[in-house]
Amino acid sequence: MSGKVQLSSQGLVARVTLSHPGKFNAMSRAMWRELKTVFDHLQQRTDLRCVIVSGEGGHFCAGGDIAEYPDFRFDEAALRAFHEQDVWGGLAAMLACDLPLLAQIEGNCMGAGVEIASCCDIRIAGQDARFGAPIARLGFPMAPREAQLVACEVGLSAARSMLLEAMVFSADEMMASGFLRAVLPGADVKLDAQVRAQRLTTLAPQAARLNKQTLRRLVTSTAPLADGFAAEAYAYADSAEHREGINAFLSKRLPVF
Amino acid sequence: MSGKVQLSSQGLVARVTLSHPGKFNAMSRAMWRELKTVFDHLQQRTDLRCVIVSGEGGHFCAGGDIAEYPDFRFDEAALRAFHEQDVWGGLAAMLACDLPLLAQIEGNCMGAGVEIASCCDIRIAGQDARFGAPIARLGFPMAPREAQLVACEVGLSAARSMLLEAMVFSADEMMASGFLRAVLPGADVKLDAQVRAQRLTTLAPQAARLNKQTLRRLVTSTAPLADGFAAEAYAYADSAEHREGINAFLSKRLPVF
Amino acid sequence: MSGKVQLSSQGLVARVTLSHPGKFNAMSRAMWRELKTVFDHLQQRTDLRCVIVSGEGGHFCAGGDIAEYPDFRFDEAALRAFHEQDVWGGLAAMLACDLPLLAQIEGNCMGAGVEIASCCDIRIAGQDARFGAPIARLGFPMAPREAQLVACEVGLSAARSMLLEAMVFSADEMMASGFLRAVLPGADVKLDAQVRAQRLTTLAPQAARLNKQTLRRLVTSTAPLADGFAAEAYAYADSAEHREGINAFLSKRLPVF
Repeated sequence: MSGKVQLSSQGLVARVTLSHPGKFNAMSRAMWRELKTVFDHLQQRTDLRCVIVSGEGGHFCAGGDIAEYPDFRFDEAALRAFHEQDVWGGLAAMLACDLPLLAQIEGNCMGAGVEIASCCDIRIAGQDARFGAPIARLGFPMAPREAQLVACEVGLSAARSMLLEAMVFSADEMMASGFLRAVLPGADVKLDAQVRAQRLTTLAPQAARLNKQTLRRLVTSTAPLADGFAAEAYAYADSAEHREGINAFLSKRLPVF
Repeated sequence: MSGKVQLSSQGLVARVTLSHPGKFNAMSRAMWRELKTVFDHLQQRTDLRCVIVSGEGGHFCAGGDIAEYPDFRFDEAALRAFHEQDVWGGLAAMLACDLPLLAQIEGNCMGAGVEIASCCDIRIAGQDARFGAPIARLGFPMAPREAQLVACEVGLSAARSMLLEAMVFSADEMMASGFLRAVLPGADVKLDAQVRAQRLTTLAPQAARLNKQTLRRLVTSTAPLADGFAAEAYAYADSAEHREGINAFLSKRLPVF
Repeated sequence: MSGKVQLSSQGLVARVTLSHPGKFNAMSRAMWRELKTVFDHLQQRTDLRCVIVSGEGGHFCAGGDIAEYPDFRFDEAALRAFHEQDVWGGLAAMLACDLPLLAQIEGNCMGAGVEIASCCDIRIAGQDARFGAPIARLGFPMAPREAQLVACEVGLSAARSMLLEAMVFSADEMMASGFLRAVLPGADVKLDAQVRAQRLTTLAPQAARLNKQTLRRLVTSTAPLADGFAAEAYAYADSAEHREGINAFLSKRLPVF
């Protein structure tokens, strides 16, 4: 079954649901494009007060859809287009959205999941949620804009451990680092997201948009990496290490680096 | 009774006291101007080693003096003058002061209180202190320079929750986020501030001034928001939402946004 | 006995050992220069996957070698050369190294020790480790680039307390602030560093280098302080306060500031 980014709304609250059954909602290229379409649309909606972002089936998002990677990751131009257009297109649309965004995080929140959560203003998670970006096992680095976004939100120290050590963190650890606003028993995460969304609907909406516009200017995650840097950032596409990481994963064997 | 910003000193230690009886030391326009006068003066004093900033009557500062707001908040030029001259004038004078500043925080520390505490180098609080900036209930955003200052000191994640969700945090939560250096039983806060001030008087004063000058350069809170941004930042002055928030508060009813 | 910065390696893992017997591995000028030589060399090594940085004899590093200070600290040009060339030369070589760096911290980690640890990607410590930069007792400020580096890694709030209050923090406090990734019983620190290093050797090395290059660009600690600022930063060299702090320490008496 192919993945989808679904949009629904109830009263003043919208819900964006990441859905990729059987893959813990891993993001396919098509889903990244849908993410942009959905948030470009939400930014135009004047009848909404906030957006809950969540995943289907007890997980937030397990990362990218690795089954697609051999199609484009080993060619530099295609890899750049994937990260700078598809992935960053979706994330930038989230960052540009003036509505308050609530991440309701259950289960796996890895790689693309951490990136999507990093675009949200308020993040809550279930006790059993797990966070990381263990792409060092897959033989490739995080793209520059994505690393900047994640480092800003999870903190430099945790970002280094995620990227360099491939460490996975518990919800309690992410709460301690300031990434999460609350950790709840799994059964309560959805309810708490709804309570918070309901609270947001009673608060001043113009003030929220203006505060988001101000806070966005304080965060360097939207623009500052020069195009010159992005130009060199994907030269690793056709390297042996990159191929080994992806191929080993798809062959269900350990990579040898 | 009108509010005052009082200055006293004992030996090498100055104390600045926010005092507005019956209003939990809410800052009036006159008090913001006094804050600037007091810290401009302190910056010239060569006989002092540190400054304790505290509030009278068991509270730090509950925010702005909302009773004054109808006089100037609904006119864009007047609103800009209030934030950019009066409020920022006071906060900038604190940030420019080369003496180590100790915030002794008891009770309410809201809005303007969080901003004033954010200008201090060392912050300690009583167990029952409460922190927030729930102006989303009042129909207006935090001014850009003030939001930048607060986000830098309380962290982006907590700042978003304060501003977008109107959340109020306990002293323990602010300790966990790194905003506070110590949380103490209420009766001990003043004593701990005095002990810390005493300690500061034994340390090298020129080194403290030079360290403050260096650390100030690392923080982007003093200048970086372009005037162009500030120019648009107060266009909400005459909006229905802004009027509803302020008027509802003063009428002691819930706002409807 | 004079101090040394020793380099060894076993398989894919290098170890850099700070060694200054009888001085808790305090950094002499010669050791700062050796630090640069060692890391410039490591950056050229293509046979290594990571570097453990540790100290000899149960301590990481107690700071600078104060016995040397009267030779050069009271002359402005000599003081600038010490900080900008010797100290920053060593630290910049560490920051420029593309290999993942693991700090294995035991015992004293003060001043120069905090700076060296701040250049490492992953930091773990023993329960009894102590962290600080109490140079306010010695009558001098932290040099600008060093203060920027430390403030970025320990956080502004803790950096202010270290520099202005001369506070010393426990490993648990540094864990809470995000500086450390793990706190362990003293006997386990070395073992945990080895386990983490072993783990790093199984992960993609090119990805690690690219991630380090990206993360380095997000941190402002390598360049942004203008030369103009550094030019004024050492004017305190010949001051009475500076002389009093250093001389009192060397005379084993309390300074009077």
